[in-house]
Amino acid sequence: MPEKTLRVAAPGATLEDLPPTPDFDSYPVPAAIIAAAREDDGRILRLDWSDGRVSRYHAIWLRDNASDTDHLNLETREQRGDVTALPKDTRVATASIDQVGALEIGWAAAESVSRFHPGWLYAHDYSNPHHSSPLATDDAAIEPRPWDAETLAEPPTFDGAAFFEDDDLLEAWLTAICRHGIGRLRDLPVEAGTVARVAERIGPLRETNFGRIFDVRVQTGPGSNAYTTAALTPHTDLPTREYQPGLQFLHCLRNSGTGGRAIMADGYRLAAALREADPRAFDLLTTVEWPSSNRAPDSDYRWQSPVIRLDEQGHVLELRVAPFLRAPLAVAFDEVEEVYHVLRLFFEMTAEPSLQMRFDYRPGDLVAFDNRRILHGREAYEEITGERWLQGCYGEREELLSRLRILARRRRAAALDDAEPNSRA
Amino acid sequence: MPEKTLRVAAPGATLEDLPPTPDFDSYPVPAAIIAAAREDDGRILRLDWSDGRVSRYHAIWLRDNASDTDHLNLETREQRGDVTALPKDTRVATASIDQVGALEIGWAAAESVSRFHPGWLYAHDYSNPHHSSPLATDDAAIEPRPWDAETLAEPPTFDGAAFFEDDDLLEAWLTAICRHGIGRLRDLPVEAGTVARVAERIGPLRETNFGRIFDVRVQTGPGSNAYTTAALTPHTDLPTREYQPGLQFLHCLRNSGTGGRAIMADGYRLAAALREADPRAFDLLTTVEWPSSNRAPDSDYRWQSPVIRLDEQGHVLELRVAPFLRAPLAVAFDEVEEVYHVLRLFFEMTAEPSLQMRFDYRPGDLVAFDNRRILHGREAYEEITGERWLQGCYGEREELLSRLRILARRRRAAALDDAEPNSRA
Repeated sequence: MPEKTLRVAAPGATLEDLPPTPDFDSYPVPAAIIAAAREDDGRILRLDWSDGRVSRYHAIWLRDNASDTDHLNLETREQRGDVTALPKDTRVATASIDQVGALEIGWAAAESVSRFHPGWLYAHDYSNPHHSSPLATDDAAIEPRPWDAETLAEPPTFDGAAFFEDDDLLEAWLTAICRHGIGRLRDLPVEAGTVARVAERIGPLRETNFGRIFDVRVQTGPGSNAYTTAALTPHTDLPTREYQPGLQFLHCLRNSGTGGRAIMADGYRLAAALREADPRAFDLLTTVEWPSSNRAPDSDYRWQSPVIRLDEQGHVLELRVAPFLRAPLAVAFDEVEEVYHVLRLFFEMTAEPSLQMRFDYRPGDLVAFDNRRILHGREAYEEITGERWLQGCYGEREELLSRLRILARRRRAAALDDAEPNSRA
Repeated sequence: MPEKTLRVAAPGATLEDLPPTPDFDSYPVPAAIIAAAREDDGRILRLDWSDGRVSRYHAIWLRDNASDTDHLNLETREQRGDVTALPKDTRVATASIDQVGALEIGWAAAESVSRFHPGWLYAHDYSNPHHSSPLATDDAAIEPRPWDAETLAEPPTFDGAAFFEDDDLLEAWLTAICRHGIGRLRDLPVEAGTVARVAERIGPLRETNFGRIFDVRVQTGPGSNAYTTAALTPHTDLPTREYQPGLQFLHCLRNSGTGGRAIMADGYRLAAALREADPRAFDLLTTVEWPSSNRAPDSDYRWQSPVIRLDEQGHVLELRVAPFLRAPLAVAFDEVEEVYHVLRLFFEMTAEPSLQMRFDYRPGDLVAFDNRRILHGREAYEEITGERWLQGCYGEREELLSRLRILARRRRAAALDDAEPNSRA
């Protein structure tokens, strides 16, 4: 919850009197600046806060983050110049606290003065990394919780009836996708195109050669095994691209057939299970470049990557695997059989019921999942007994993160308004 | 140029009689298989070719790349099962060369027989990596040539008048973009929307919060410094996203003002120059996470990354930097001043005329560039003296690579038709 304790130095002064911040966010003022002092001949500024905290900022850093209009375009909140526009020997000449509690800095060897919002300074105190920092306070920083059949039997599910009006519902659903990699909306309109309308509440779609929206149903001359009645082994979509789409949305329009249940597995959990069960296999799957290709009469996408990609700290960054898009392996001759062996182990694990969830789609259901974390597949189905029609589209993780930040930003602005009802129009 | 020497074993047999390949490509047959022999109890197959080459393939690899219809969906050219569908102990029981020169394999412990196209086998001979391999023969594998003011004064330029009909022109332009990171088309229609039509000849666009197409001209309430008359320091677009767009297209509709010349710098060349001039600065720029943010009333994109990103082999993968999207730096307190120092060095280098090209836009010009390699900027301009209007859009590198492969594939198919005119309808 946003901090509601607000302090401004002068009686009668309001938050509105504070200087603008270099962003569009609202900042509470949980403590007041009680002293500002130059250190190291003005290259560092020390602030003492009313709650006992002591913060230090470099003059160059303050100058770079100032929101005076010669430095920042207030309309775009973008800097006007690059770093070379900052004086090489930037130093604080004078520092004081003005009557509304803002920090005022006079710059050495310059005419200009900069004012800083105390709440913004408090939130960006990099000298106390155990306190808040821009990363620690990222509203979109939600810890993933890997799951298996025992800990999550169904996708976290939300009533979608009010989806297009309800921001709290949107935020809860997006939070579930961050945490579990998957979230379901129920009782959405059973209308073609709904999948795009839902995804656009987050941000722009990612169009691909399969279109802006794609229809998962039996097609003549199918461009993908997805457009047949075949079973699909759990996979990520488009591992053939440099950038696999971050999000996938599937909306059910019809499902009157037999079979076709969704199969989902958490790649983070799978990777952890494999790492424990067979460290050598895990090492190979995180290092051997497996090639994928997505060939069609008018496109030819190829990429190669380990099936499990790690970041520099050894955490799982993403999975990249679609068993039906295997291109010819081209590793050293003597490695071929071992590589096939570990890939077999991996697929055996994805078929393990204890690591899967399975569920049926109802018309009006929409499932969204992190395509780089969750492997998705389906059971085979019989077209003859009915009709199964899903519409899908892709989006990016970054759009989801941006949307979560905006939703939190609005809550924060509303909370500040509540705390100080007279300070805003 | 495609190989035109074709050999099939039986007189009168044609390429059409050969088995299908696991992809949609056409393969010349530069040598005939003269002997096929089992090794290691059938786990390996040895082929002797008429040109003296000896190739070896693992049984499991052959089985996985077979194009019989129980294994591969010939409509989609996608595998029907994952690796667990392959027998664990896959071995070759019998191997022979049929009358049209195809390899025929009978599988141990299975009823089935697989036929292989000799040209496809020759091209995918992973036992002779100094010969062809899927990677070595990737038509889209074009070596980048870093440039500076001395080696490339203007973007490689092509007459765009026939652009929408001429595939050779398309291929030449895309090749220039791969090689130099930039390519220009001249004398395109001076019509709004042309930029999207041009980009769609490659593949789908990448839509962002700035729209599917964006207008670079003075806007009221601008969402970016790009939409003002300000100078822009060379930068990449959208470093605030997990995935910076790979390609950017800018099409000039009007340019009657003063100033506004384009500034371009090759990030690969810049990185090499910096590595040589100041290895310590290079190390910091490739490791320190610099944060960017792209905040707006309705979106809040953030990312942090080194300014120069290297791959595991130490090659430059991409640059990520937009001086007007600097977010507050949050590194260890004692590193702040040094990080600002090296960032200053970097921007001084981007301002170095010997590492830049500058040019004017003419209405009808379209410049496309690799947004993750080329830094682009512009001089300030005066709106009062005229009007400057560019339309832009984004695409992805992978679409460009796919298009190059398809263009080469068509040339290859045509060459095979020429070489054997009677074999096709």
